[in-house]
Amino acid sequence: MTKPLHPNLNIDALFLGPKSENAVFFREMMEYAVSEHMHWRSSFHPGDSALNTSVERHEHNYRETLYQTEGILNQLSAKLKNTSIPFFSPRYLGHINSDTLMVSNLAYVMAMMYNPNNCSYEASPTTTELELESGLDLCRMFGYDPKKSWGHITSGGTVANYEGLWVARNLKTLPLAISQHPKTKALLSHKSPQQLRNMATAEILDLITELQQIGVFEEIRDMTCRGTGIKPEILGKLLVPQSKHYSWMKAADIFGIGQENIIPLPVNENYQTDVAKMREITFQLIEQGEAILAMIAVVGTTEVGAIDRIDEIIALRQECEERYGQSFYIHVDAAYAGYACSMLLNEQGEFLEYDDLDSNYRSIGIMPENISWPKPEVYESFKALKEVDSITVDPHKVGFIQYAAGSICMKDKRILDLISARAAYVFEENDNQKNSAGSNRGILGSSIMEGSKAGATAAALWAAHRLLPLNISGYGKVIAAGIVTAHRLLEKLATFPPIEVGKHQFEVHIMPSPDFHMINFTFKEIGNESLKNHNALNKRLYELCSYSTGRAYANDFLTSSTILDYKEYGDTPWHYAKKCGFNRDEWEKVHRIYVLRAAVMTYCLRNEEHFEEFWNQLQTIFVKKINQLVDEEEKKTRLMSEPYTAFIS
Amino acid sequence: MTKPLHPNLNIDALFLGPKSENAVFFREMMEYAVSEHMHWRSSFHPGDSALNTSVERHEHNYRETLYQTEGILNQLSAKLKNTSIPFFSPRYLGHINSDTLMVSNLAYVMAMMYNPNNCSYEASPTTTELELESGLDLCRMFGYDPKKSWGHITSGGTVANYEGLWVARNLKTLPLAISQHPKTKALLSHKSPQQLRNMATAEILDLITELQQIGVFEEIRDMTCRGTGIKPEILGKLLVPQSKHYSWMKAADIFGIGQENIIPLPVNENYQTDVAKMREITFQLIEQGEAILAMIAVVGTTEVGAIDRIDEIIALRQECEERYGQSFYIHVDAAYAGYACSMLLNEQGEFLEYDDLDSNYRSIGIMPENISWPKPEVYESFKALKEVDSITVDPHKVGFIQYAAGSICMKDKRILDLISARAAYVFEENDNQKNSAGSNRGILGSSIMEGSKAGATAAALWAAHRLLPLNISGYGKVIAAGIVTAHRLLEKLATFPPIEVGKHQFEVHIMPSPDFHMINFTFKEIGNESLKNHNALNKRLYELCSYSTGRAYANDFLTSSTILDYKEYGDTPWHYAKKCGFNRDEWEKVHRIYVLRAAVMTYCLRNEEHFEEFWNQLQTIFVKKINQLVDEEEKKTRLMSEPYTAFIS
Repeated sequence: MTKPLHPNLNIDALFLGPKSENAVFFREMMEYAVSEHMHWRSSFHPGDSALNTSVERHEHNYRETLYQTEGILNQLSAKLKNTSIPFFSPRYLGHINSDTLMVSNLAYVMAMMYNPNNCSYEASPTTTELELESGLDLCRMFGYDPKKSWGHITSGGTVANYEGLWVARNLKTLPLAISQHPKTKALLSHKSPQQLRNMATAEILDLITELQQIGVFEEIRDMTCRGTGIKPEILGKLLVPQSKHYSWMKAADIFGIGQENIIPLPVNENYQTDVAKMREITFQLIEQGEAILAMIAVVGTTEVGAIDRIDEIIALRQECEERYGQSFYIHVDAAYAGYACSMLLNEQGEFLEYDDLDSNYRSIGIMPENISWPKPEVYESFKALKEVDSITVDPHKVGFIQYAAGSICMKDKRILDLISARAAYVFEENDNQKNSAGSNRGILGSSIMEGSKAGATAAALWAAHRLLPLNISGYGKVIAAGIVTAHRLLEKLATFPPIEVGKHQFEVHIMPSPDFHMINFTFKEIGNESLKNHNALNKRLYELCSYSTGRAYANDFLTSSTILDYKEYGDTPWHYAKKCGFNRDEWEKVHRIYVLRAAVMTYCLRNEEHFEEFWNQLQTIFVKKINQLVDEEEKKTRLMSEPYTAFIS
Repeated sequence: MTKPLHPNLNIDALFLGPKSENAVFFREMMEYAVSEHMHWRSSFHPGDSALNTSVERHEHNYRETLYQTEGILNQLSAKLKNTSIPFFSPRYLGHINSDTLMVSNLAYVMAMMYNPNNCSYEASPTTTELELESGLDLCRMFGYDPKKSWGHITSGGTVANYEGLWVARNLKTLPLAISQHPKTKALLSHKSPQQLRNMATAEILDLITELQQIGVFEEIRDMTCRGTGIKPEILGKLLVPQSKHYSWMKAADIFGIGQENIIPLPVNENYQTDVAKMREITFQLIEQGEAILAMIAVVGTTEVGAIDRIDEIIALRQECEERYGQSFYIHVDAAYAGYACSMLLNEQGEFLEYDDLDSNYRSIGIMPENISWPKPEVYESFKALKEVDSITVDPHKVGFIQYAAGSICMKDKRILDLISARAAYVFEENDNQKNSAGSNRGILGSSIMEGSKAGATAAALWAAHRLLPLNISGYGKVIAAGIVTAHRLLEKLATFPPIEVGKHQFEVHIMPSPDFHMINFTFKEIGNESLKNHNALNKRLYELCSYSTGRAYANDFLTSSTILDYKEYGDTPWHYAKKCGFNRDEWEKVHRIYVLRAAVMTYCLRNEEHFEEFWNQLQTIFVKKINQLVDEEEKKTRLMSEPYTAFIS
């Protein structure tokens, strides 16, 4: 009998737990982390005389300083306890938050005491290697070749998206620079001006290698926008799903592209990029002689968790290459759902066939009979990720790491040469000292946007990846717990009978069939035909389920909310408004719908019994909140003849 | 008798200590931090049934998962102990690193368990306020009006510099946009085209207020480079000291300005921006009709700790305004030395007169009779900081916070309107819920470069600022310890007799009179006239005093190094090469000098007795290292008739 590759992980043993169930273990390990470091200090040149004696440590101002420290920590603890949000609890179903892994919390503390700085290898010999290793873990999960790709940690998904755009933008101007340099212009003389502006990523990267061999790369790199500055008319258009995360608006500003050069790609009824319209827009741009700076796709939008059709984008790119000899850079923002790719890999890290998923899920016991995930097209999207040029994925979201940890994976690390910088004091020249980690050692700060950065984050991520391999029996197991819970909750909400309060009745409307584990829903007063009033009701309901009406800790259910607005989504939210029973005129008048939004990440409710208990409580809570809301309104109007009419700003 | 404002802090009680002297206290407080959080969890809806029973927690796979977690932490600890750098020890004098404050380590851990995300107030009701409070602490230290200014935490100094450039760049294009809009062009009709391109910051910010009143601000903002993309020819030139940190090269790339639009300002013999040449270049640019995108000054260069003449830059700007009606944005990169401003403030936060500094230092007992700091011109620089538009300062450098914590302060927070973004789900509209923190609440993610970020960093910084007020008796005390030690060490090195090894003699040459607490020095073989060999010797010496020749932990002295290169500094390093005894031809031939670089931040050697003991050890270590180096060379050449001739790459 062969031993299984990984232990049969018990999910409850990964987290501190909603009642600090693992308090004893966590305390022991924290003590271990602290002790290990303390011994490391005291064993360093033990012969050195001590800084002070234990007697001196009892002097008045010494004690006073320690008590002052303690007093500040008392204050901080009081503040934290008073106003923090209990993300750890299954009663919190809102933002993309939940409990975080014990191992990553402990690893962070352990490494933090050594205070490594991953900007340079010299300041972080341990944790730079852990960062590169963790980056490659993610590359492998997406199907990138670990020999050719690279990944690293950013301070968050926003900075990861920035880096994707940075390499795409600099790449875009390289062919033009090559065609303008006397020594290299022959290399691209077969290309039309527009083909130069829309060359394929791999083709350009091969040119970098060629330029380095001729010895003119650095000279030509200075002729790209990096050296000369931006010319937006040359860069072309940035195609971003209409559901665009605001980080893309910031990115277009920061990178000098200009927000007006973003072309929003309309989304379909499910908030995924509309494939037909994307094709139409892309062909049109190319036929108009325009350049495409990059195509952005999203795997898990922050508002509804929609997953774009990556396979279709890859197919479109191929079609453009065949039809026009033109191509474009693809960056995927998988900050939210990226880690879910691990649910599709077996223990050997191989992509499972779609038809084998369910049986695998059943055999590991992570999904009951009546639940399936993902939809076939979502599966195809994940499977196509290996073809895209770069991917943002946030360990501090579905990686269950504490903040702040984003990351970016790049398919072909040669692309780093387009952004790399050097500073003598950071990057020592001692190349003959290279060891196991090879040529990536030491260059981190020169190949990324940030400079100094916490090595402790790398330790936290590395430890999480060691405990939870990025496959079906590691991360897959934990992520499945949230998906299962989301499915159950959706089912309950879909069949939830109206809540009656006096002569008012309130029914739930869900946004059906989410791509991942985010649920959007609203409560509607039966008979209310005013979308404005509906929005006001749900806004007030959000307030009653959030920090904004008092101490979150005292609340019994916490969620988040968002507004689906015409300005951002066009007519897409109309489908949901219609489903809720509003007529088209109402939609035209208000052009926005306020929804409750729950990212269901909790691992605590995967067991059906626990879920049922939770649901019973939640029903009661909803009834209570709706009652409270009606009471408030009645107090205000003293006459409740109209449907809910609270003010909405 | 009135109680002093702050307790008489004992510096040794602030840090864990080189032998973990404060182990008992640190452990107690760590246990407190952990316990407080655990109780917070278990008291949240105590009636909820537990996730699992203690019996279930003894099941095989539960225990296996815990042991697996422990095993990974064992591995991590072994890795950290094996290859980490003992920054905590006075034996480490290299990069801008030292021990970090217990209170900030503990506060980080405490807050991390709550996992707040300072991107939005909703996800961090406690720590967003702590971030804004800490930001204002820094603004106050620099002399900014806390009612008008704002500061916040970035992932590091690099990102802070980016934000400074971002606001400067967007600001630069606003007057042009105003002059092109039919409703507003009259506002600026009195300005010449070049005056439009070089308007004063305050004047532009007043226009923002005016545009908001007319109701056209957002429309016009879309006409700035944020909306339209960059036109480098309009933006003009970015003036950066020749000693430019590589973050500025990255910034010019990222912000679409182009590295060729950086104009390096030559530095003087002390590596400060040469005031006369800066004036000349500035006047020339204006007279040529060029725009100045921004002027960057550095308070504490990363290579030698040089502090630019901020007062002179302010005077120059005033002169430009008077003479030409033109102005420019000033950003100061005080990542390294910014916190030293606290040494110049009394307990009421007032700037001390220069002539009163010494007596104040003596009365608090932070500097002995024979040591003074700063030089008069450095004092004037700090005093002038309140006039600049924005300042980068790194808590993870001289703020003694663990990584990663940078920050930026902006003189006039109205400037944020030029970069702010919004996303419905992050920035709830519930404006009537505003409380104490006022209008800044909730907007963090929309006014900064990053998105999600660790609230724990804010807790760490806030706690440090509460324990150590930003004045002479708080941070000043700790920073003075490093300055005093640097002075003593410089004095010793300056009079260090040559080390004799066989027929070879090696003498120390220091770079004299540093502005802050960074010491640069080299060992020179007497009689060696080859700069190349000199560089090789010091490079090898660095290797022998760093991780690169083995486990840093086993080493008895650790430092860092840098290369002062003609490419980056022009002929400035020639002065030092000459001081070392090399002739001009040698300098012309090699054009670089390799130096050992020690940022003296340790608080452990402020006491003269401790310092003398340390210096006795260090002398012995130097002798040992030089012997080792000569031995190696003799083994290589088997005949040591020539001066040191090791290879230098």
